[in-house]
Parts: sequence; C-alpha cells; structure tokens
Amino acid sequence: MSKRILLLPGDGIGQEIIAEARKVLDWAQANGAELTIDEGLIGGTAYDETGTPLPEATITAAKSADAVLLGAVGGVKWESLDYAVRPERGLLGIRKALDLYCNLRPAVVYPQLADASTLKPEVVSGIDMMVVRELSSGIYFGEPKGVETLADGRKKGYNTLVYHTDEIERVARSAFEIAMKRSKKVCSVDKANVLESTELWRDVVTALRDAEYPQIELSHMYVDNAAMQLIRNPKQFDVMVTTNMFGDILSDAASMLTGSIGMLPSASLGEKYALYEPIHGSAPDIAGKGVANPLATILSASMMFRYSLDLGAIADKIDAAVNSVLDQDLRTADIMQAGKTEVGTAAMGDAVIKAL
Amino acid sequence: MSKRILLLPGDGIGQEIIAEARKVLDWAQANGAELTIDEGLIGGTAYDETGTPLPEATITAAKSADAVLLGAVGGVKWESLDYAVRPERGLLGIRKALDLYCNLRPAVVYPQLADASTLKPEVVSGIDMMVVRELSSGIYFGEPKGVETLADGRKKGYNTLVYHTDEIERVARSAFEIAMKRSKKVCSVDKANVLESTELWRDVVTALRDAEYPQIELSHMYVDNAAMQLIRNPKQFDVMVTTNMFGDILSDAASMLTGSIGMLPSASLGEKYALYEPIHGSAPDIAGKGVANPLATILSASMMFRYSLDLGAIADKIDAAVNSVLDQDLRTADIMQAGKTEVGTAAMGDAVIKAL
Ligand SMILES: CC(C)[C@H](C(=O)O)[C@@H](O)C(=O)O
Ligand SMILES: CC(C)[C@H](C(=O)O)[C@@H](O)C(=O)O
Repeated sequence: MSKRILLLPGDGIGQEIIAEARKVLDWAQANGAELTIDEGLIGGTAYDETGTPLPEATITAAKSADAVLLGAVGGVKWESLDYAVRPERGLLGIRKALDLYCNLRPAVVYPQLADASTLKPEVVSGIDMMVVRELSSGIYFGEPKGVETLADGRKKGYNTLVYHTDEIERVARSAFEIAMKRSKKVCSVDKANVLESTELWRDVVTALRDAEYPQIELSHMYVDNAAMQLIRNPKQFDVMVTTNMFGDILSDAASMLTGSIGMLPSASLGEKYALYEPIHGSAPDIAGKGVANPLATILSASMMFRYSLDLGAIADKIDAAVNSVLDQDLRTADIMQAGKTEVGTAAMGDAVIKAL
Repeated sequence: MSKRILLLPGDGIGQEIIAEARKVLDWAQANGAELTIDEGLIGGTAYDETGTPLPEATITAAKSADAVLLGAVGGVKWESLDYAVRPERGLLGIRKALDLYCNLRPAVVYPQLADASTLKPEVVSGIDMMVVRELSSGIYFGEPKGVETLADGRKKGYNTLVYHTDEIERVARSAFEIAMKRSKKVCSVDKANVLESTELWRDVVTALRDAEYPQIELSHMYVDNAAMQLIRNPKQFDVMVTTNMFGDILSDAASMLTGSIGMLPSASLGEKYALYEPIHGSAPDIAGKGVANPLATILSASMMFRYSLDLGAIADKIDAAVNSVLDQDLRTADIMQAGKTEVGTAAMGDAVIKAL
C-alpha cells in the first residue's frame, strides 16, 4: 500500500533543502517504494499566505500522512509579529497537535569531518550519542503562562514547568527501547536538587527502569554537570533522556560538538504520528543562495524510511550514499575543508542521487 | 574600621580549600588589612550538627558580616535526605536570605593552562568572559511548586518560572555596569521565542539599555544557540546576562571551556550583602585527601577584597601571586600537565603566600 508523505518546506533554506530531499524520495519511488507525496504550508510562509503559521489544512494533511518531512521555520522577516503568529508557533503547534512527545537527536561525528569540530579530535572522534528529548510537555506548554501587569505597575512574566507521571514514563520508555538496541546505557538529565518537577522526573525514570528494564544501566546527572561533561568528555554518553527545555539546550550543544550540525537529522515521534527535520534552523542569511547543506534533510528522510515507512533497506542505502559523497571529498560551504571540493545545495543533492 | 568576614567551609573539600584561603586572609591582616574573621556552619555539616543545612545563627552572622567566603556544599552522604534539609537547600537558602541577585562568574583562560581545555587552543586562548547570572528569583524560587497526586492516581510535578520587572532590571543594571568597565558589550540570553517570562526579560533588558545605557552594544540570543555559540566561538562573548536556570547551565559550560574549572572564583552580590565561592563543587571523591585545588577559593577571596572590602591593591597582589605559582610550574592534580610539578592543597596555599 502506498505511503503518504507530507513535505513542509517552511521558511528560509527550507525550500532548497526539501527540494533535494525530494530528489531522494523520487529515487526511492523509482526503486520500488510506493509513495504519495503532498506539500503543505508552515511557519512564516504559511503566515504570509494564510495569516497563521499553522493552517488547519496542514494539521489535517499531517494527520492523514504516514510521516511528515519538515525543512525549517523562522526568519528576521517575521520577528516583529505578535508571538501568537510567529513562525516558531507553527512548529510548536504541530508538535502538540500530533502529540510528538519523543524527539530523537543523534549526535554523530563523521570521521571525514572530525577536524571540523572546535574540540580536539581525540575528544570528539567516535562520538555517537542519541539525545532523547521530551517534546510535547514541560515548560514549553505548561499552564498558566503569560505576562501581566500588577497593581503596583510592575509586570510579571511567568511559565509553568509541569510533568505528569505518564508523560515522563512514555518518553523514558522510548529512551530505554532505543538503548536496548544500542549499549543499554541511559543517562537521565534533570535538576532534581532544585526543581520538584524534575525530582518526579528522576523518580519515574528510575521506577520504570527497575520495573521493566533491569538490564539498562541508568545514571542520573544534573543539567549543569551534563553541560560540562558534554564538553569535558562527550564520549561517556550513549543515550541521554531529558526534559523539553534541557533537551533543547543539551542537544544543540551535543550537535555542535560534532562540528557539522549541517549533517544532523532528527525524528519527532508520537503514538500515531511522526515528523522528521534537520537539527539546524532556517538560516535566513544564506536562504535562496543555493549554498545550504541538504544532507541533514536527506538523512532525516533516511530516518523516516527507517522508523515510519518500514523501509530500512532504503534508509541504509541513503546513509551509504551520504558517506560516499563525503568520501568523494564533496563539501557544502558549512563543512568546507582545505583540499576538498566546494559544491552548492543542488549539486550535493545530485551527488547523493548519483551515489545511490 | 575592621571588616567582618564570615567563613563557611561547608562540606567535602570545603574545609581544606577554605583553610588555604584563610592563610591569605591572615597574610592580608599581617599586611595592614583590619579583618575580624568568624566561622559558621552550612550544608551537610550544618545538618549533621544542628538538623538544618542553614542554621539561623549562620544567617545572622552572614547579615552582620561585610562579606561571606564559602567553600562548597553537598555530598553523597546526604543524598538520601529529604529535599528540604539537603545541603543544597543551605546554599539556595542563604542566597535568598541575603537577596544575592547578581552572580558573577568569570570564565578566563590562564595562558599557562590553555592546553588543558578539550577545545583547540586557538578557540579558547584569550577567553575572558563574565557570566552575570540572576540568582535569587526565576524557576529556582517561583511559587507554586511541588509534587501532588491527582484524583486519577497520576502524580504531577511542577515549578514556576517567574520574573518581575524589577528583578530583571536590577541584574541587567549590574551587567551593564560591569560592561561599562569592560568592552561595553552585553549579550542577554533568553528563550523569548517560547517562554513568555523571558519575553518580558528581553523587553526589560532592552528598555533599560535604551533609557540608561545607550553606549552599551546589546545583543540577544536564544539559550540553545548560546550553548552552541559557546562551543563554536566562545571569544565572541564578553558580558553575558541571563536567568537563574540558564545561568546555571551556561556558566558551567563556559567555565569548562577554559579547561581549568578548579581556577574559577565567583561572587554573589545583593544590595546589602555579598558571598564569594569557587565555581566548583564539594568533590566528595577527593575530600580529605589534601589534593584539591585551593586557587579558585583564593581567587574568590581576591574578588571579596576587590568588591566588598574596597581593598583592590590586596586583590591585585593575590591575583599576581596566583599567576606566579602557575609560572613556577606548580600544579594541583586537576590542572596537572606533563613536565610540571604536582603539589597538594596545602603546598599550593603555601606557595601563594610565599609569592605574595
Ligand atoms: C524554534 C524553537 C521553537 C525550537 C525549540 O526550542 O524547540 C528549536 O530550537 C528546536 O530545538 O527545534
Ligand atoms: C548546588 C546547586 C543548588 C547550585 C545551583 O544550581 O545554583 C550549583 O549548581 C551552583 O551553580 O551554584
């Protein structure tokens, strides 16, 4: 049966990088994958056309798709808009609408690019970690929140960090399941010495391990220490599981360690839906110039074939093709190194197709 | 008039490192500084003796002192205690009791130790930044907070991130004042694209700059990007100002970049009181072994002479003495390098006194 894929290019370089991923989808179709590919609006582009960063039509299309592949959202152009209609609200909105609670952010060092890191090669070579970030609860969505003016004239801004047992349990379960297929090691990151909400986080994660995953070696780390340990000795980590806010910060730090954030895909999974997108943003400064790196988006498509479409063989081929273009010394500007050949977005996409 | 100093050694290596700082205070007294030095209890040690990590007597003594010099709190020994009486609550409690809203955390690379960083020397050499962390409000103290059991049996853990106009304004003012004595560049870190409370943060910081510090070059950065930029190009930062929680994470990351967290002091300032402490923790694993690095505590004492006791000349001498022992190739275990001479805690303290 044909699988339905919804493409959401979004803003900035989103259009360009999704165009390259589309070439890979077309290749997969020509090679036996039955796909129905639609396109939808999200972010600033959606706002410009419809007045909202997340049109109802996009939610409906996403819910009837087997997977969503997203480019990126946001840009200076929309920064003076009201918060409620900013491009980012489109992204937060679709995560919530599809209940995508489990965000997988691999941080992997490509041997071909190891010297692109600002860290010493011996510290980063071989980094292969997976940050599992809770994505649909926590302080990103907790109520009450807002800004109000008090009787004395001062303003008060507030957000609520909330976690319920079941919200913690399901993302911890995802992390444990992933760890079972890797080294069976999970580090859960919280700030349980200060925040009661993450005291509950720690208790629930521990109880689930004890009850259902006794094989897992579980450790706990405070978020400030985790930020330090990522810099001091990143290779100590395999699977890391943490809250929405801490995951936002730590996964970005982890990806930057690799020196090639333009290479890193992500998956956002729920019980029913799934969305894939590169870790990097919409890079408005280089949008439309044809120089963006499409590989993170192509690797996000690979994750989609693996996790949502049950086409692991195709995913393996895409991963191999990406390695092959790196071996051919092809580089986009963001990962350019002395002695290599600089290519643009489309040329990089074409090289992947050729290597497939 | 004699200045009153309260020493709070606390737990773990706290006793050892404060003992070395005390040698420096004694030297200052012998060289004309009029000091009255008291000692008090805090943390696990205080709990063991009095049943609370922050005895009333400590608060009273701190309030009648011109400055507090603290070692460190915490340790495995107290980890199974109720949260309310854990050593960390002593630290949070004294920050709140003294209304220490402005936490200064310098991250400086010592040329003698630049190669101790896991980052490449060209990326870190010359790092000289100051993280200004809001320390007495935000999610660390916001109400309501707690863990409760819902009617359906699930537990709910929650904390509240709250900032009021005046709480933001006073710490932003501190950051601007510090920046006026440095390069007049401030980067304010928030998550204004998601959290309303930090939308207020951004607005208040900007309004204060516009109204009173037009000379300051103010930039804003989202916390996830800041975590990345610290790794990608830390030297772009001079003064960074941010919330309690983000400051906890980013200042630890910044200090780890330098490769010598055992060298970094901090100051926590309020309108009326001030507390100084090393950035590192109580290191229970090496407590009592006489190998801890006392230099961060000695440098904290230097900050105390400069900011609270108006004895900048003494501070200058202490800073020079610390540089001198490094130039003499003396190293404690945490900063040991090939070809240098490893010394213990007391020998390092004595070397500083000799260099004074
Ligand atoms: C754009 C922003 C709302 C988003 C987030 O904070 O989740 C982004 O930083 C991410 O990590 O996907
Ligand atoms: C011990 C802990 C409560 C404390 C904090 O989170 O503030 C520490 O990490 C610090 O940064 O001083």
